[in-house]
Amino acid sequence: MRANVFRLPMQHPGDLSELEGLIAQETLRADDIVAVIGKTEGNGGVNDFTRGYFTQSLMALLSRHLDEPSDSLIRRIPCILSGGTEGVLTPHYVVLCRSGAPLQKPAPAAAFAIGTAMSRSVPAEDIGRAAHVESVADSVRRAMAEARIAEPANVHFVQVKCPCVTSARAEATRAAGKTVASADPNRSMALARAAGAFGVALALGEIGEADVTDKALLQNFSVHSGRASISSGIEVEANEVIVLGNSPLWSGDLRIAHRPMSDALDIGAAVQVLADLGITAAPQVAPKDRARVQAVFVKCEPDRRGHIRGQRHTMLDDTDINAQRHIRGAVGGLVAGVFGDTRIFVSGGAEHQGPDGGGLIAAIAERASSRSGAATCVS
Amino acid sequence: MRANVFRLPMQHPGDLSELEGLIAQETLRADDIVAVIGKTEGNGGVNDFTRGYFTQSLMALLSRHLDEPSDSLIRRIPCILSGGTEGVLTPHYVVLCRSGAPLQKPAPAAAFAIGTAMSRSVPAEDIGRAAHVESVADSVRRAMAEARIAEPANVHFVQVKCPCVTSARAEATRAAGKTVASADPNRSMALARAAGAFGVALALGEIGEADVTDKALLQNFSVHSGRASISSGIEVEANEVIVLGNSPLWSGDLRIAHRPMSDALDIGAAVQVLADLGITAAPQVAPKDRARVQAVFVKCEPDRRGHIRGQRHTMLDDTDINAQRHIRGAVGGLVAGVFGDTRIFVSGGAEHQGPDGGGLIAAIAERASSRSGAATCVS
Amino acid sequence: MRANVFRLPMQHPGDLSELEGLIAQETLRADDIVAVIGKTEGNGGVNDFTRGYFTQSLMALLSRHLDEPSDSLIRRIPCILSGGTEGVLTPHYVVLCRSGAPLQKPAPAAAFAIGTAMSRSVPAEDIGRAAHVESVADSVRRAMAEARIAEPANVHFVQVKCPCVTSARAEATRAAGKTVASADPNRSMALARAAGAFGVALALGEIGEADVTDKALLQNFSVHSGRASISSGIEVEANEVIVLGNSPLWSGDLRIAHRPMSDALDIGAAVQVLADLGITAAPQVAPKDRARVQAVFVKCEPDRRGHIRGQRHTMLDDTDINAQRHIRGAVGGLVAGVFGDTRIFVSGGAEHQGPDGGGLIAAIAERASSRSGAATCVS
Amino acid sequence: MRANVFRLPMQHPGDLSELEGLIAQETLRADDIVAVIGKTEGNGGVNDFTRGYFTQSLMALLSRHLDEPSDSLIRRIPCILSGGTEGVLTPHYVVLCRSGAPLQKPAPAAAFAIGTAMSRSVPAEDIGRAAHVESVADSVRRAMAEARIAEPANVHFVQVKCPCVTSARAEATRAAGKTVASADPNRSMALARAAGAFGVALALGEIGEADVTDKALLQNFSVHSGRASISSGIEVEANEVIVLGNSPLWSGDLRIAHRPMSDALDIGAAVQVLADLGITAAPQVAPKDRARVQAVFVKCEPDRRGHIRGQRHTMLDDTDINAQRHIRGAVGGLVAGVFGDTRIFVSGGAEHQGPDGGGLIAAIAERASSRSGAATCVS
Repeated sequence: MRANVFRLPMQHPGDLSELEGLIAQETLRADDIVAVIGKTEGNGGVNDFTRGYFTQSLMALLSRHLDEPSDSLIRRIPCILSGGTEGVLTPHYVVLCRSGAPLQKPAPAAAFAIGTAMSRSVPAEDIGRAAHVESVADSVRRAMAEARIAEPANVHFVQVKCPCVTSARAEATRAAGKTVASADPNRSMALARAAGAFGVALALGEIGEADVTDKALLQNFSVHSGRASISSGIEVEANEVIVLGNSPLWSGDLRIAHRPMSDALDIGAAVQVLADLGITAAPQVAPKDRARVQAVFVKCEPDRRGHIRGQRHTMLDDTDINAQRHIRGAVGGLVAGVFGDTRIFVSGGAEHQGPDGGGLIAAIAERASSRSGAATCVS
Repeated sequence: MRANVFRLPMQHPGDLSELEGLIAQETLRADDIVAVIGKTEGNGGVNDFTRGYFTQSLMALLSRHLDEPSDSLIRRIPCILSGGTEGVLTPHYVVLCRSGAPLQKPAPAAAFAIGTAMSRSVPAEDIGRAAHVESVADSVRRAMAEARIAEPANVHFVQVKCPCVTSARAEATRAAGKTVASADPNRSMALARAAGAFGVALALGEIGEADVTDKALLQNFSVHSGRASISSGIEVEANEVIVLGNSPLWSGDLRIAHRPMSDALDIGAAVQVLADLGITAAPQVAPKDRARVQAVFVKCEPDRRGHIRGQRHTMLDDTDINAQRHIRGAVGGLVAGVFGDTRIFVSGGAEHQGPDGGGLIAAIAERASSRSGAATCVS
Repeated sequence: MRANVFRLPMQHPGDLSELEGLIAQETLRADDIVAVIGKTEGNGGVNDFTRGYFTQSLMALLSRHLDEPSDSLIRRIPCILSGGTEGVLTPHYVVLCRSGAPLQKPAPAAAFAIGTAMSRSVPAEDIGRAAHVESVADSVRRAMAEARIAEPANVHFVQVKCPCVTSARAEATRAAGKTVASADPNRSMALARAAGAFGVALALGEIGEADVTDKALLQNFSVHSGRASISSGIEVEANEVIVLGNSPLWSGDLRIAHRPMSDALDIGAAVQVLADLGITAAPQVAPKDRARVQAVFVKCEPDRRGHIRGQRHTMLDDTDINAQRHIRGAVGGLVAGVFGDTRIFVSGGAEHQGPDGGGLIAAIAERASSRSGAATCVS
Repeated sequence: MRANVFRLPMQHPGDLSELEGLIAQETLRADDIVAVIGKTEGNGGVNDFTRGYFTQSLMALLSRHLDEPSDSLIRRIPCILSGGTEGVLTPHYVVLCRSGAPLQKPAPAAAFAIGTAMSRSVPAEDIGRAAHVESVADSVRRAMAEARIAEPANVHFVQVKCPCVTSARAEATRAAGKTVASADPNRSMALARAAGAFGVALALGEIGEADVTDKALLQNFSVHSGRASISSGIEVEANEVIVLGNSPLWSGDLRIAHRPMSDALDIGAAVQVLADLGITAAPQVAPKDRARVQAVFVKCEPDRRGHIRGQRHTMLDDTDINAQRHIRGAVGGLVAGVFGDTRIFVSGGAEHQGPDGGGLIAAIAERASSRSGAATCVS
């Protein structure tokens, strides 16, 4: 069983032509696709419809190639998108493929591994509360099993997409005599991300059941997962989970690593995650090594205390530009500079995901010796 | 004659309390102030009034201390502000001071030197045209003379603030039977910046008189100055020029250096300008060296061809966030990460300022051996 | 031959559930749909993907019901969307249906009539130039013929969607050694709208061939069409034209009327267009008459001279909110107040569409006596 | 004692030239100015510095003319500004003047009357809580006494400016071991406005002491004042109160009236408030009557339930444009259309100010017979 990763550009959120081309030329088999993670050029907020547009387009394409209805595919293949390509960032998507069967016995070196899971629909009244945390944790455990990763330490990145409460859903819930954790759309998205992070932390053993309370979400920021990346959006009703790690039951030349980012200036984290993968950035990845990097995932957050290393920032008080758009642009610029590449998945809203005021970075890269040709997942 | 530099935070665009405090405790003499360069937390566009607000507040403060009317001060002391502290950037201002008399004979090592000049009012019909270029060049030459810098090679940074055409000015000019180079406010600001850059390049000998035509502005992007930083705004009617360089007729422990930035990912430029000043960033300036850095100035630009290193960016097609706001946030994040400090002056609109699609970076720092206490410019 | 009009809400740009429901309950036959005009909740600018998302969703629905590929439908059924539901406006779409055969001889009273046409693809180098004008005029004439409207005076509203130049298309055109009218996305959209307006005016005899020059577009604002409504967007490559008017060869209880708006405060135009249709607004349409109104279309424009009735407005100098978003919100609020209904199609960018600084309003309503039940277009 | 009102345009937030001119030509005496209410062209949010800039400029002007320090004036003359001139609105300010002595006995007809009051500084931990309500109510009562209005029914408009909690103030309060009602800047502004509205309602007898609880603010929307207009902003630390009404102890030709607005489409309220003042709008104020209108004040609100008359609006879910900016533009467009004038003070954030989802409108106008020349307040 081996994984392959394709990082593809899009011209707009409905543009799947690159993937179509790879399938047409048989570089990639539609059957092998297990998940997609992408950055679309919306605003990343409640009214970002680029995510739904891309998902609809992707599922229509897969439906044609797999002869399976979109409605079924969407419940089977997680497509997790983060809106917002502020600054230098490039709209792109990472197609995660799996082919072959697991090794009979563990290999000496672990290789990049993928597992996915989908939860049931999360009722609006549960979103951003403890019940939501449990729902996420359960899905993470199932995805780890599917990835054949037994040790939480071998999990390096867990991408989750959680539903949030729009003003329409809030109104419907109120009409049904129930309450939502917050009717404010931006706060609802934040609470949903917090629930997702707690869920990942719980599944990976970073926290215990006692840490999980409604009240701790967005309050106790000492609780965090070092490997959770949570998005929330109006276009999903269930949690979608993608677990990425290394497993001795997988083969192939890819590996994944991650590092926490202590704050938005933590350029060292980007350099170190590359070092973990055997790549030097001094200060930038050399052109010869750039193609080894297959995907980069970053979570970040405008420090909610209003300062970075003692100096004031203005992100939280800006009525014109949403704070998450600010921070994605800044951290995206930093990480793109280290990698020499603007195809960086940078997602804001890192509440409880990495250290408070910071976040995390994960990268997938080929081993140095393996670089002999274009990646392919057709066996 | 020696220069001193104070980099001060502001809580809002009318907050000069830090400068007030330094004057009160006699760390700084109001008499010694020759120029101010700052970043305010506006949008950096035509309707950014944070620049005018700060200027009014600064001049009121200086008027009280120097017993000179604001109207007079504003024509004597350049106060050049760039709006926009996107991402991690901190609103701050750099106060440039000069005290003492020039050395009688050149010292072996050149020290940081400052010169300023103000042009006459630029008529709205000249803005962004060749007549504007000549006006700027003339002022740059006068500022170099004042700074006692004979060699253009010793000039490292020229900050210019040019007037632009608001819709009100455009209407008035049309009513007078004349034309403006552009009535579109954002284009007018760009043309004014282009004229400023050509003016600096002309004064520093980077281009010749034959290169200066109305038509070349915003057209011939092979023409650029490696040391020009131009802002434009509605709050000025004349060009204000600040020349920064090193001169053997000045003393003190400060030096300035600059580097071109080839594109928005050119992290190497930030590392190199630090190396020029004897400071190592691997990948970030070490805490012990951070206080040696007195000011950092960056110009940058959303690549107008829509790509960075072959990958699409979305800055130019965004109706929600102005392209200059995008690029300031991204490059600000990159440079702040290298310096470990968010007090970076990052100004967008780098047309003809540094390589096309890139920009430039300049920094002022103390010599390694000199760091024995707090800076002071009271003799 | 009779027309029917359905004004339907959407919950998001991919939501066609209301139309699906009407087809399912046989209130509306998919076969009868000839055009759709809608307002989606994007930003209305170059990077507004809500239009493409809605269109993809609509065509997928029609494809299922008509057993015709989306690719074919999209070239046959104009779907013209304007992004931006600023202020009180409601995202909605107007489905225009036609059923039956033309009358053998003219009826005494003309009834609401619809015709459509699609042009060939417009090359990027033609967009916003005289060649584009001719292309639009030709299509308008064909749509009039299809609507069986012989007299230009009986045309009340011509909705056109024109392609524009994105930065990607501009780059490709330059690479091919050609020029675009403007590489600035917002200006390109404006030029495309201007070309569309000239095209309509030419077809309706409001101007002559001599008035059509590259140079007149966005320059000679005395040229305008009183019935043109032009959108432009990245999602189309050909002009799509919908002609709405009254024709004695059609039957039914609907009529259309239009009025020019002299400026953004011209509340009288809204009252008068209602009076033309036999409905009183004093100052608002009474609840009993509200359901008679089937659709309202408005074009408007931020006065490019910076003033409205002698007082300054700030729309053109705003770096945070695009001027078109400003004016749509303001005029939408005004017209919605008169109609007592927020389902108003308000489109900005009214260059050459109605009087300079103003725009136009058109409305479709049932005759007073006809209101006996829900509309239906199933014969 | 008589009041005079001057409605003056500004070219930018630091432009007081119109007022300067009126003082210079002795049309207005600086001594007579008791309050200023204005609309500046900022974003109306936490980071809107146009209000502070205007205030600083106004106080500097008055300081010159009255020979009184700005610091003293700012605690004596309320200057209440609302940022945001979305859509057609014109930046302007209304200068309220008072001259002469009160009548010895009541006149048969009440005339326009003004009273003001300032509270003590409101601690950050009180903002948006019951203690804040009491503080406002007390100030309203004092302002009524100053205006010589004994009957609450004769009060038609109470403008209050309340302080809010910025992220800096929230941090400081936390550091002092206290809590703020909300650390989210936008929510803090909303809570402060709610406290102001409750305070006005309490002082005018619209509610009783029992209705005032921390919990009711932004929760119990059946509580509202029909005459409260509350702004909040970072630039004040105390409540500033201006009471406007009619009093038989005042003379002059001006009167004020007000009407509730039931929702954002309530065009009837604008027509009715004009009728109350003897002016017909059918549908617009006739040119001959326009100069009789001296000032118009409007409060409005994006309906927090997400619908207007049963149709969805998108204001609350928009990450690009703040909901208050949306609604100001829409309602401003509607009211400006009725008055035929864009100089309308429209302020968002109408929580508890007028009916839920609506707001209120007040206008000051001259009597029909009085219109014999330009207004003057120089006796």
